Amino acid sequence: MEEQEGTLPQKADFSGWYNDILWRAEIMDVRYPVKGLYVWFPFGFGIRKRVYGILRELLDRDHEETLFPLLIPEPEFMKEAEHIKGFENEVYWVTHGGTTPLDIKLALRPTSETAIYPMYALWVRSHADLPIKVYQIVNTFRYETKHTRPLIRLREITSFKEAHTVHATWEDAERQVEDAIARYREFYDRLNIPVLISKRPDWDKFPGADYTIAVDTIMPDGRTLQIGTVHHLGDHFSKTFSIQYEDTKGQQQYCHQTCYGISERSIAALISMHGDDRGLMLPPEVAPVQIVIVPVIMKKREEEIMQAAELLEKELQNAGYRVKIDTRDLRPGAKYYYWEMRGVPLRLEIGPRDLDNGVVMGVLRSGGKESLPRADIIAEVNRKMTEFTAILQERAKTHIKDHLVMVKEESLVNEMVSKGVVAVHWCGNRECADRLEEIADASVLGTEVRTDLIDQTPGTCIICKKPESVVTLIGRSY
Amino acid sequence: MEEQEGTLPQKADFSGWYNDILWRAEIMDVRYPVKGLYVWFPFGFGIRKRVYGILRELLDRDHEETLFPLLIPEPEFMKEAEHIKGFENEVYWVTHGGTTPLDIKLALRPTSETAIYPMYALWVRSHADLPIKVYQIVNTFRYETKHTRPLIRLREITSFKEAHTVHATWEDAERQVEDAIARYREFYDRLNIPVLISKRPDWDKFPGADYTIAVDTIMPDGRTLQIGTVHHLGDHFSKTFSIQYEDTKGQQQYCHQTCYGISERSIAALISMHGDDRGLMLPPEVAPVQIVIVPVIMKKREEEIMQAAELLEKELQNAGYRVKIDTRDLRPGAKYYYWEMRGVPLRLEIGPRDLDNGVVMGVLRSGGKESLPRADIIAEVNRKMTEFTAILQERAKTHIKDHLVMVKEESLVNEMVSKGVVAVHWCGNRECADRLEEIADASVLGTEVRTDLIDQTPGTCIICKKPESVVTLIGRSY
Repeated sequence: MEEQEGTLPQKADFSGWYNDILWRAEIMDVRYPVKGLYVWFPFGFGIRKRVYGILRELLDRDHEETLFPLLIPEPEFMKEAEHIKGFENEVYWVTHGGTTPLDIKLALRPTSETAIYPMYALWVRSHADLPIKVYQIVNTFRYETKHTRPLIRLREITSFKEAHTVHATWEDAERQVEDAIARYREFYDRLNIPVLISKRPDWDKFPGADYTIAVDTIMPDGRTLQIGTVHHLGDHFSKTFSIQYEDTKGQQQYCHQTCYGISERSIAALISMHGDDRGLMLPPEVAPVQIVIVPVIMKKREEEIMQAAELLEKELQNAGYRVKIDTRDLRPGAKYYYWEMRGVPLRLEIGPRDLDNGVVMGVLRSGGKESLPRADIIAEVNRKMTEFTAILQERAKTHIKDHLVMVKEESLVNEMVSKGVVAVHWCGNRECADRLEEIADASVLGTEVRTDLIDQTPGTCIICKKPESVVTLIGRSY
Repeated sequence: MEEQEGTLPQKADFSGWYNDILWRAEIMDVRYPVKGLYVWFPFGFGIRKRVYGILRELLDRDHEETLFPLLIPEPEFMKEAEHIKGFENEVYWVTHGGTTPLDIKLALRPTSETAIYPMYALWVRSHADLPIKVYQIVNTFRYETKHTRPLIRLREITSFKEAHTVHATWEDAERQVEDAIARYREFYDRLNIPVLISKRPDWDKFPGADYTIAVDTIMPDGRTLQIGTVHHLGDHFSKTFSIQYEDTKGQQQYCHQTCYGISERSIAALISMHGDDRGLMLPPEVAPVQIVIVPVIMKKREEEIMQAAELLEKELQNAGYRVKIDTRDLRPGAKYYYWEMRGVPLRLEIGPRDLDNGVVMGVLRSGGKESLPRADIIAEVNRKMTEFTAILQERAKTHIKDHLVMVKEESLVNEMVSKGVVAVHWCGNRECADRLEEIADASVLGTEVRTDLIDQTPGTCIICKKPESVVTLIGRSY
């Protein structure tokens, strides 16, 4: 919808690349006249739809989708003390309806605990009502005063998937936390995004939670992006909102809860992890266009080639592929450039010579031209798609490996953390963490790291030298 | 999630029936602590998902889905004079971020013209960019001071599908209006909801439109519900927001636009049109559960019956049906009641005698028990579903016919309009319309009525007796 001028910055200049690719690949329009609010272009929306389709599929196995109001009355919002502290500076308030001041101010949900839990108090009566596993995909709001960035730091988070579960016991809720982590891992596996999962330090947990498990990934510039969180809420909220059940002995008990969320940061990670200097590279499952057919027209045989292209398109569509045939009056190079920018996994070219030879030229977005026998085209395309997914996976895995390193010398931390995530031994003491964060100019991401990429054997605290200290990740986060 | 006490009021007491069925069938929870805001129960959400799935399917043929911000800055919102007048009393304003007053107030979109059209001004450059056909499904807000009602009159409209198109000429936009009407008709056909489509009188058109075509249906109590509108915007907004294109001669031209919307009122209509004294009746296409299997257990043959029920469930699921097998420890009658309330089209019962006879008992939600040969069960179920859809269609058509009447005597208007929609001849003069509305205690719905249920031959104006007056609908609307 916009003429493309200049060229995409190299991905090595990640910040420039990221800002540029959003409009060049028609993902987000950043020109909306309010800071921190952006418009989803149809193409970007097509990615979003498919990414959230996967999330829904995974959750629908045993969760139910629902929808709660956006507006939270001030008294409900103010009920949980820790929770308010965490959000009070960044809540948008609706104060007027028309020109009339409202009796009760309404918060735009920054997250929905205080909208949902008063209802849970009504929904839960008996142990037979438990567990409740509900999720919704909604817009949430934060009055961000920091630098905003499309898909990453927003004032309207347009695509917040938040799940809220209720259980009888603390242990049931803990099992749900583990289940959510497994589900999120599966989600990011489907997107070929490797993740680092760890337990956030106590001072960085969700306001009102017993503990928080976070899912991070490493962006191309080595900074980390939090792309999912899972919170064990204990009985904090159930006590505040009186969510009680009658147990099998007829006693009233407080429930135990969890909540966990993923936002469009998942799409920021998707774009950033896989893209290259020529644009997006989209995993086939979420690519709005999976295959583009480019007819290589020769005047004499134009009609014949077009017919062959259309037949091919039909066949691939019947096999379930999302296919475009690019018939625009442009030279082939311009078409290649256009579809490469948009991350289309496979390009098929048909020219007169291909017709004569009974082949189609296949070019993966990651490179490499291959002549594919036309007669077996579906099987061949299936094979190329599998190949492409494996390439994306391998590239991503290599990226994470190359940006995660164990450091044992205090003096090396700052330099290494400027390149990626650093694992150190840490005694668990807040003072050592503060010192570490100061030295590193970075944050403690968490402990109990769930990865086999680093050795988890305890060791000497990098600051105070206390033995038997645990492995902790630190990184500079978005 | 709630114990069901008492019984559903008869549908003849429509207001009581409607309020009650929302929670009995687990569609909406009305206990959210803000007037006019409601919670979608998972079951209700399951209906919503499928209804909007149809809408998406119809629009995705040639529209693109997208997503624009919720918050509209005051200066943009205030640009179009007529438009503001239409909405200024019912807009919610965000005035604070945290405790900080905002420099520029932000409106919660009541509808998105003023959010989208500044972007269209950037998107449209040349005639080659046209047409643009975009839609989004979003939450919108109205500070309703009137009596609110779930799904019908809301402060948060949770499910507003709004399409916004841009065209070169007024005629192109007019064709788009016709296309949208056809699409909406198809949508309501799929839901088996008969509609009355007419052109709203000038004083009741959308603020800023050239004209408005409205889709109404008749509720069980004879009142009308507007369940869709299509607006020809002419070039009003394109002039306000400078949406221009360069035509083939290199001249700058203002665009012509349309917009059209459908909200969760479509679901209010769905519930109300088809339900009966026992609860919902859902068209199979949108029923979260299409078939419930109730095993009629006899102690001696319990295992055998359960196996047969599970095998049947598998088979039906493989055929693409959404099936539940109800194994709860309740007597069959309680199960029947439960699933009838939730509108499940078909109940299948399996007992020992059915097993012996190689049959399954099929009971449609609309009544009638039939023994279905187990060996042909898929074909039989297909047949029953078709039968059920035809019954819903027929009932709905009869309802509309019975509640739409042509009246030629001024003295009969008030009485007849208390029972349904009345067609009269009207000269087109505003004074006559005012008089008519006063007599009828009802509103002029519109002219150019697109239905074959009434004779459209011009006649004498029911008020001033002017000949050659057009047929006009009047009704009491929600």
